[in-house]
Amino acid sequence: MAEAENNPEKEMVKKFHENAAKGDAAKMSTMLNYSSFLVDEVDEKGWTALMYASRNGHFEVSQLLLEKGCNRSISNNSGQTALDIAKFWGHKLVADLLANPKPGARSRMSYDGPEENENYFGRSLLNRVSEKRSNSNWLKDKQIQPTTIYILFSNLNPLVTSAKCENSGKTNIHLCRLHYEDIEQISAESEVTSIFLGAELQGNNSGSCVKSAVGSAFTQDDVKDDGLVAWFAINADFVAAEKLRVKYPNCSFLQPLIPHLLNLNEEEAGVVAQARSVLAWHSRYMFCPTCGSSTEVQDGGYKRTCLKKNCPSLQGVHNTCYPRVDPVVIMLVIHPDGNSCLLGRQKRYPPGMFSCLAGFIEPGETIEDAVRREVAEETAVKVGHVQYVSSQPWPMPSSLMIGCQAVAVTTEITVDKEEIIEARWFSRQQITGILTQDGDHPVSIPPPQTIAHRLIKRWLKKNANL
Amino acid sequence: MAEAENNPEKEMVKKFHENAAKGDAAKMSTMLNYSSFLVDEVDEKGWTALMYASRNGHFEVSQLLLEKGCNRSISNNSGQTALDIAKFWGHKLVADLLANPKPGARSRMSYDGPEENENYFGRSLLNRVSEKRSNSNWLKDKQIQPTTIYILFSNLNPLVTSAKCENSGKTNIHLCRLHYEDIEQISAESEVTSIFLGAELQGNNSGSCVKSAVGSAFTQDDVKDDGLVAWFAINADFVAAEKLRVKYPNCSFLQPLIPHLLNLNEEEAGVVAQARSVLAWHSRYMFCPTCGSSTEVQDGGYKRTCLKKNCPSLQGVHNTCYPRVDPVVIMLVIHPDGNSCLLGRQKRYPPGMFSCLAGFIEPGETIEDAVRREVAEETAVKVGHVQYVSSQPWPMPSSLMIGCQAVAVTTEITVDKEEIIEARWFSRQQITGILTQDGDHPVSIPPPQTIAHRLIKRWLKKNANL
Repeated sequence: MAEAENNPEKEMVKKFHENAAKGDAAKMSTMLNYSSFLVDEVDEKGWTALMYASRNGHFEVSQLLLEKGCNRSISNNSGQTALDIAKFWGHKLVADLLANPKPGARSRMSYDGPEENENYFGRSLLNRVSEKRSNSNWLKDKQIQPTTIYILFSNLNPLVTSAKCENSGKTNIHLCRLHYEDIEQISAESEVTSIFLGAELQGNNSGSCVKSAVGSAFTQDDVKDDGLVAWFAINADFVAAEKLRVKYPNCSFLQPLIPHLLNLNEEEAGVVAQARSVLAWHSRYMFCPTCGSSTEVQDGGYKRTCLKKNCPSLQGVHNTCYPRVDPVVIMLVIHPDGNSCLLGRQKRYPPGMFSCLAGFIEPGETIEDAVRREVAEETAVKVGHVQYVSSQPWPMPSSLMIGCQAVAVTTEITVDKEEIIEARWFSRQQITGILTQDGDHPVSIPPPQTIAHRLIKRWLKKNANL
Repeated sequence: MAEAENNPEKEMVKKFHENAAKGDAAKMSTMLNYSSFLVDEVDEKGWTALMYASRNGHFEVSQLLLEKGCNRSISNNSGQTALDIAKFWGHKLVADLLANPKPGARSRMSYDGPEENENYFGRSLLNRVSEKRSNSNWLKDKQIQPTTIYILFSNLNPLVTSAKCENSGKTNIHLCRLHYEDIEQISAESEVTSIFLGAELQGNNSGSCVKSAVGSAFTQDDVKDDGLVAWFAINADFVAAEKLRVKYPNCSFLQPLIPHLLNLNEEEAGVVAQARSVLAWHSRYMFCPTCGSSTEVQDGGYKRTCLKKNCPSLQGVHNTCYPRVDPVVIMLVIHPDGNSCLLGRQKRYPPGMFSCLAGFIEPGETIEDAVRREVAEETAVKVGHVQYVSSQPWPMPSSLMIGCQAVAVTTEITVDKEEIIEARWFSRQQITGILTQDGDHPVSIPPPQTIAHRLIKRWLKKNANL
């Protein structure tokens, strides 16, 4: 402060930053008119005005600074950009703005952009347009429309192709996008479950490396009536699916599903998350659990109704007709001193791999209590405050991972040996070492596509400077 | 600042508050030794040192201030106490400390106390001790132990009694706590499902108005072997349950379940949430959904396994054997100007009642996207940032309500007329009016036991001073 008072320039920067933090775009605009140098000035923490605006979620100020040509890629003394800060503090609109390469191209009304704390499987290129599910005529029309996309699963593994992206030169795995003519025969010959996934979000394919692997190309002009490009998923048994696959030599069914499924591009991963969960439900819930009778598929694949008259499942409030979603808590438990975290090893993990503790939420339990119960059961560590961070669909077969950070109030570990065979406190330094080493480190954590990885990295990045 | 500099006392209060906000207990202790008046001094916002410590979750400082005899019931200019502030910011340990009438009585290690943003159905007087579920000998022993508690359901409605609390004079509904001798006959005569709920948390009954309505009283000395008081729940059909009920003239089955279930005390409500969800699952999932065969109950009621050899449900990763928990998003959508919120009316609501929008999370969807989809589907309002607030088990039959606050980025409402028949923006003033009026107001919101009510009240209380 004393230093700033002796230095009018520093004093001006300080005022400029204060206005950014407060969200006073008018004052900043006036200051910039006279002192344009302020736009990218940093303080002793390495923070710019854009970072202060991002910290407090001021959209208008961020927009002003971008319009005035500020450098959004500056990092502060902790290595964080303004976008990192906006994401960290959950200011989605500002994060959207900063993540967008062309300022102004995405309007303030956009709400399908990147999420704060977004996870793999959490994005999709489809709008579910669920109101169409009960419109059987619309569904029938769409099923045979030449622009409609089908994705095929064999025993719940999706048909994919590898393609080299012309822009980046990287080889990516893509879903094979089939059309009605491709799947017409398989649908006629064998019992396949077909589910309606949704309609393409507008503009989602522009600039993408995704290309239809098979089937004819089409343009927007080909789309009839309402202009919606519908997507369906079908699951066929191995024999029928294989018969179709041999026609497309560049395509194969993704196997083993993990880890390969984690290499799809993010938008397609979200489509698979939806499709695989619903198809897995159909493969396991053919019979009415209330009376054991057969069921029929309804609502575009989102309902199975018992065929037996007077079955109690047809009356009252119940859930037997609808697909399951199994909520799971997954938590990074932080040591009371804040400088280490608790990771555990399950028997089924690859050698040396440690991850966040996790477990299914039980009936009649809150998210927070499920975290406390699971941590206590698996490691005997007691947990105090629990904070929700983000969620991730995990279609193996139909989990919703609810990611939390939790603070331990005891530190002694006793593993249950059932679910967890080993658990340890890892320091920040150890985690940094694991993340920055090559493949031959004795300890590893799950890959970046997992919410466990993101919870760990988020904790590592968080420090007092944020 | 200038004012403070001219007033040494104000300057000292400011420093004292700064130390509280920073968590510097040592400096505060020194200051208090010389200037004990500081302990309850307020600043221009009406904040005390305890409030600043609560705001930032400083446990040690809060403890120090309580030991020094500070007044925890002071409210700031916005009407918030230190406890309100600690709860609002999610500092559970500090909130626990402030909520506890006897400072020091609850240790820092306590983790089963009141939650920040805790909801009805979210507390329980039981520890699930789930490791006992697979120990069939232990379960058998506990089932016949005289101290073991049974709660009885008839067609999923719990048996309750009304009792006048000697301390408060209030009449409360309590669960009838039965013993083995009470239910022995019903178990032998008819097919009843019995599930293990857990063991009583120690000290949970002390000071409570809860009394065993039927069955013999017992003391801690009666508890054999491991000292755990086990709880079981059984569900019987109407005829068998009624035969038992007539023996206890003060007891009745709770009907209609809503709203009466909301009048149980909070700990018993959590027990019912667990028991009813699991029992409802048994009543609807008697048959294997994969093959239609019969199933058998295992693991104390937490698993049903198909009796058919080679059923695919016995192999691989699947979820058919376990109770369902259906995650639901429920959200208070805030107008972009921050001063009103979006509430809707479903057909089935009582006349004039408006509530938060809500809907089931679909397979392959994040919590945040489910919020955006449901709000768009029901009202056509687009939502930007979504923030998790708290969760509430809702055992009708087995939902997990995931409560969020969301910020709208559009304001025009078009209701779908399917799920929602009317939706409106309500100003803070209107909501305050609804909350403070008598029963004959044309508009109402759900009762305080619902997460919808708590989301609305939380928003109303939140303001810039927090």
